[in-house]
Amino acid sequence: MILFLKKNTSDTQVENLVKWFDDMGIESHLSKGKFQTVLGLVGDTSAVDISLIEGLEIVETVKRIQEPFKNSNRKFHPDDTVVNVGDAKIGGKFFQIIAGPCSVESEEQICSIAKQVKEAGATLLRGGAFKPRTSPYAFQGLRAEGIELLLKAKQHTGLPIVTEIMDLSHLDLFADVDVIQVGARNMQNFELLKQLGKTDKPILLKRGLASTLEELLMSAEYIMAGGNENVILCERGIRTFETYTRNTLDISAIPLLKELSHLPIIVDPSHATGLSKLVRPLSLASVAGGADGLIIEVHNNPQCALCDGPQSITPEAFGDVVSEISPFLKLLGKEGLGGLV
Amino acid sequence: MILFLKKNTSDTQVENLVKWFDDMGIESHLSKGKFQTVLGLVGDTSAVDISLIEGLEIVETVKRIQEPFKNSNRKFHPDDTVVNVGDAKIGGKFFQIIAGPCSVESEEQICSIAKQVKEAGATLLRGGAFKPRTSPYAFQGLRAEGIELLLKAKQHTGLPIVTEIMDLSHLDLFADVDVIQVGARNMQNFELLKQLGKTDKPILLKRGLASTLEELLMSAEYIMAGGNENVILCERGIRTFETYTRNTLDISAIPLLKELSHLPIIVDPSHATGLSKLVRPLSLASVAGGADGLIIEVHNNPQCALCDGPQSITPEAFGDVVSEISPFLKLLGKEGLGGLV
Amino acid sequence: MILFLKKNTSDTQVENLVKWFDDMGIESHLSKGKFQTVLGLVGDTSAVDISLIEGLEIVETVKRIQEPFKNSNRKFHPDDTVVNVGDAKIGGKFFQIIAGPCSVESEEQICSIAKQVKEAGATLLRGGAFKPRTSPYAFQGLRAEGIELLLKAKQHTGLPIVTEIMDLSHLDLFADVDVIQVGARNMQNFELLKQLGKTDKPILLKRGLASTLEELLMSAEYIMAGGNENVILCERGIRTFETYTRNTLDISAIPLLKELSHLPIIVDPSHATGLSKLVRPLSLASVAGGADGLIIEVHNNPQCALCDGPQSITPEAFGDVVSEISPFLKLLGKEGLGGLV
Amino acid sequence: MILFLKKNTSDTQVENLVKWFDDMGIESHLSKGKFQTVLGLVGDTSAVDISLIEGLEIVETVKRIQEPFKNSNRKFHPDDTVVNVGDAKIGGKFFQIIAGPCSVESEEQICSIAKQVKEAGATLLRGGAFKPRTSPYAFQGLRAEGIELLLKAKQHTGLPIVTEIMDLSHLDLFADVDVIQVGARNMQNFELLKQLGKTDKPILLKRGLASTLEELLMSAEYIMAGGNENVILCERGIRTFETYTRNTLDISAIPLLKELSHLPIIVDPSHATGLSKLVRPLSLASVAGGADGLIIEVHNNPQCALCDGPQSITPEAFGDVVSEISPFLKLLGKEGLGGLV
Repeated sequence: MILFLKKNTSDTQVENLVKWFDDMGIESHLSKGKFQTVLGLVGDTSAVDISLIEGLEIVETVKRIQEPFKNSNRKFHPDDTVVNVGDAKIGGKFFQIIAGPCSVESEEQICSIAKQVKEAGATLLRGGAFKPRTSPYAFQGLRAEGIELLLKAKQHTGLPIVTEIMDLSHLDLFADVDVIQVGARNMQNFELLKQLGKTDKPILLKRGLASTLEELLMSAEYIMAGGNENVILCERGIRTFETYTRNTLDISAIPLLKELSHLPIIVDPSHATGLSKLVRPLSLASVAGGADGLIIEVHNNPQCALCDGPQSITPEAFGDVVSEISPFLKLLGKEGLGGLV
Repeated sequence: MILFLKKNTSDTQVENLVKWFDDMGIESHLSKGKFQTVLGLVGDTSAVDISLIEGLEIVETVKRIQEPFKNSNRKFHPDDTVVNVGDAKIGGKFFQIIAGPCSVESEEQICSIAKQVKEAGATLLRGGAFKPRTSPYAFQGLRAEGIELLLKAKQHTGLPIVTEIMDLSHLDLFADVDVIQVGARNMQNFELLKQLGKTDKPILLKRGLASTLEELLMSAEYIMAGGNENVILCERGIRTFETYTRNTLDISAIPLLKELSHLPIIVDPSHATGLSKLVRPLSLASVAGGADGLIIEVHNNPQCALCDGPQSITPEAFGDVVSEISPFLKLLGKEGLGGLV
Repeated sequence: MILFLKKNTSDTQVENLVKWFDDMGIESHLSKGKFQTVLGLVGDTSAVDISLIEGLEIVETVKRIQEPFKNSNRKFHPDDTVVNVGDAKIGGKFFQIIAGPCSVESEEQICSIAKQVKEAGATLLRGGAFKPRTSPYAFQGLRAEGIELLLKAKQHTGLPIVTEIMDLSHLDLFADVDVIQVGARNMQNFELLKQLGKTDKPILLKRGLASTLEELLMSAEYIMAGGNENVILCERGIRTFETYTRNTLDISAIPLLKELSHLPIIVDPSHATGLSKLVRPLSLASVAGGADGLIIEVHNNPQCALCDGPQSITPEAFGDVVSEISPFLKLLGKEGLGGLV
Repeated sequence: MILFLKKNTSDTQVENLVKWFDDMGIESHLSKGKFQTVLGLVGDTSAVDISLIEGLEIVETVKRIQEPFKNSNRKFHPDDTVVNVGDAKIGGKFFQIIAGPCSVESEEQICSIAKQVKEAGATLLRGGAFKPRTSPYAFQGLRAEGIELLLKAKQHTGLPIVTEIMDLSHLDLFADVDVIQVGARNMQNFELLKQLGKTDKPILLKRGLASTLEELLMSAEYIMAGGNENVILCERGIRTFETYTRNTLDISAIPLLKELSHLPIIVDPSHATGLSKLVRPLSLASVAGGADGLIIEVHNNPQCALCDGPQSITPEAFGDVVSEISPFLKLLGKEGLGGLV
């Protein structure tokens, strides 16, 4: 971190500042240039509050040299992280698709979809048990029962399951869940992230609607700082002024996150726009843009999904998407989808 | 709710749809116009998932006639809600200021600031015990100890205290807190909102960084649906493309929320932009725009605040702000600030 | 257009409204339902000002049934428009790349780049003569001389040229230019669009930084209403809160515009983020997402470009991008790039 | 401007860089610190392209020390600029209101409104002659005839007139117009700004929908660089994700622009949200926030305005707004409104 001091800063003020850092255990190095007095902070400054420093009266501005994320930073971990979920590997050269309905509704429904998406190439099953809904009057998911039904579908198909946690108090219910999803609205639920960092389960961390890439990586950092390095990042659209789509898929997030971090990054083309007709082109674009996987909403009867109907495609349409992306994946040297590519 | 059906919809399809609503206990009323067949849903449709209906193949589009919020809706509750916190009344003709430091740091610090802001006109004391920080390496607040120190400051000054909850598991620690704050990042932490709805404590609900006004009111609805009607809304800036300020204060939110809802609405001019120099003009503008109160960060030594330094003003500057807004409040016929106006 | 009238509307008021529309030559059709009185406007309502109607006291809300764009609307023109520029066809199954430097700097520079990008597969040459710069003190382009130099490069290579117009008064200088570009800042310069509608030149219309897709199509409508149907749409990134990238590429715009309109749509991966390292992945993603072409900044010496340096790639890097996208284009059944695919 | 060089930069590379700046006539000063080699550029660097410098391979990042705007910068012109329009002074301690209809429709209409708004306290008359409309099929204004009608209204009332220019080619028609307005869509129409800089007329420059404050000041700079210092800035709402309002009024823009620049800043509460019911509270808030004036749409029959109906208030409602803001203006020590305050 480099501090630019204001022109009229006195020597005493500079000395006090240096001492203040010293007291915090931070070494600093002064350089008086013709135009600017500059103070460089040495060592690990990730705990230093940049906005506090900026607030000091003698400081004109502050420049961070290091990114504030460490565990998730590619600089300190050049190789791609590959997250293993059962037989499915995500990251590096491995590409997987997580598919399933928005909400788990019944044993028949979830088992039937699980079977169909597996046949089409999905290697993980998703399904909502706890559902974050804008309205308190809307269906809130089958909750604990939903997780049990997902586990039955896992028994039948062998597919590892991915489902969303909404509150720390439910964590015990997720003991047999393979991947715990943290939804966009909880991306900065820091107490939740801290506790998930103490588990050894893969965490699917969705980007918040108005979160920057740096904030996403800082949230990954909360999990990793606790010792859990199995974090899968997920781009799912950000909020913009455009109204044709519910959100705007930030396709640049894929290559940028790949550069900044070693963590796998998958894309949710269903929630990214809220329009099922866009799932196919956005899946293709995400694959071409370098994604390590997709998470797609599939429903056997899109008209009867208990929630988020318009974003779901049928198992047949899902099969078509897999068929279309497969040759792209081969061109890009990716493997996965249960051996399909 | 009114459904516009597609032109080529057959009579059988319409009958099936009517029956489907019937099965859900929703009465519908068909109107075949020259240009459009329209189906009106009667009664309480707040539990109907509009996006599901929109996803039906025979539906062209759906128009909601009623707002989806009920308890917070001014239509069903024309009079302003006045929330009582100790002797302080917020809402209607009553205006209050909540002031205090970003973080509670020590007994001396919090008691000293409490005394000073009370003298200047603040009628509630704020202070962060649990601090949501973007970085896991940054200071996370004194947590339980912070609440104890706030309670000591309350003992000394008589000021009711306002502090933020970050997780349901901490709820017991808030037994003696007067107003529980739900931060912007937790505005859609629905499990937390549900539980807070079962308490009888006033809840200060901050608008999320990328949340619409309707979403804010739906979150208030989560709390009120549980039986707790003491909700204070708080506008604190939204995320936009502008980079001079951390966020953009949405001043229109004040009159719009006043029209849509009977709940009191206060403004946080400190977090709205992250620049302490803007606290004064934004406080004046918020008062003139019709706010029922302000929540302002005040620190006895802005340079040493352990977090969010740049947004804090000194007790002296705070006193000046109160002096400046007082004649405005009188012009607007507002009372409060411990009898100051 | 359908008008929902307020509940307490009197018969006289409805009659007056019907008469008012009648005077404007618009036929209307009344339908009194149990819940809502609805007035449907018949025929071409594209000249009706929806916001004016919404402002009428007896009108609750208005719903547009037809999109406000006509000439650009796929509903009235189901087949893809193919725009011909010299030998290059853009749209339908034809894919082309427009490449060249941000600014034309000298004859040697532009001719050398033109030769190199042609060899690599570009079929049109771009180069800035008139440069819209945020600062009046920055290099404003070679202007008229720049167009002359582009024409020389065209002579040498046979590549049709694409360059931006900044003001109507320069139109005469564009007599020999093959494609006139309207930049993002001028997307709603309606007087300019009207005049371009009277020419027969292909127009490359860039989406404004904060323009919705509907606004982009309405601007195309300005050109087409004048008789010029050769409009090529261009997605080039929108302004959002993310700060890692200058803008956010809205990849969904490609399939959405393809559905709404028959016009070709190309992508500018250089300006979309302002980071040359992202040109490659975003080009791949755009191709996979269904784009009809790309416009890429290429500079023989990226470090010396007189403007917008960071978004430019070298001719070698450009050649690599073409090589990488070619097999994708073949998979998608696209032709173009001078026979390369 | 300060350049941070990358760690592995060789001495030869640094020498070449210094020489390159030297060739451009820019003096530089090298400072090798323990952590960073820093190059400071001396003198006027406003013509230096920061993005070009950032693109150089040996440069890690660049920090601008000076703001890129000069003529509009308060640092070089500490006193408030007061723009004189006839008898009306805008800026400093002087506050004025510009009022009038969206579009000029007829002599009777504009003269009648002019009379009414003058009586209520307006000191300038606005009215649209050339109207930028999203749709080519919507009413485009009376154009030249509209300006003539405005001049008649000026004759009758003595009010100076403000109207929008849409294209340079119309400039001659504005010979007798008192204040030329540049609309939000033309804020970066640089050729237009340059020519307006050569006139001596006051220019009302509206902020673009997605323009930062710095960009607004750079556009003012285009005008001022030509010699015309009579620029009035106007905040009129920015585009955000919120959908209740057409745009979001950025109230912080007022105090921030006052700090950065000496130019007067007025607010357009009508276009800021598109809701006439918000004109009153946003006018109050803008006054309290420090604005030097307001521009308000007033229509004698809001239901018949040929465009932008919902944003207009009646002359009576306008009178009420003036009555309400007057005591606020007195509190703030402002003068104006034809002696009303």
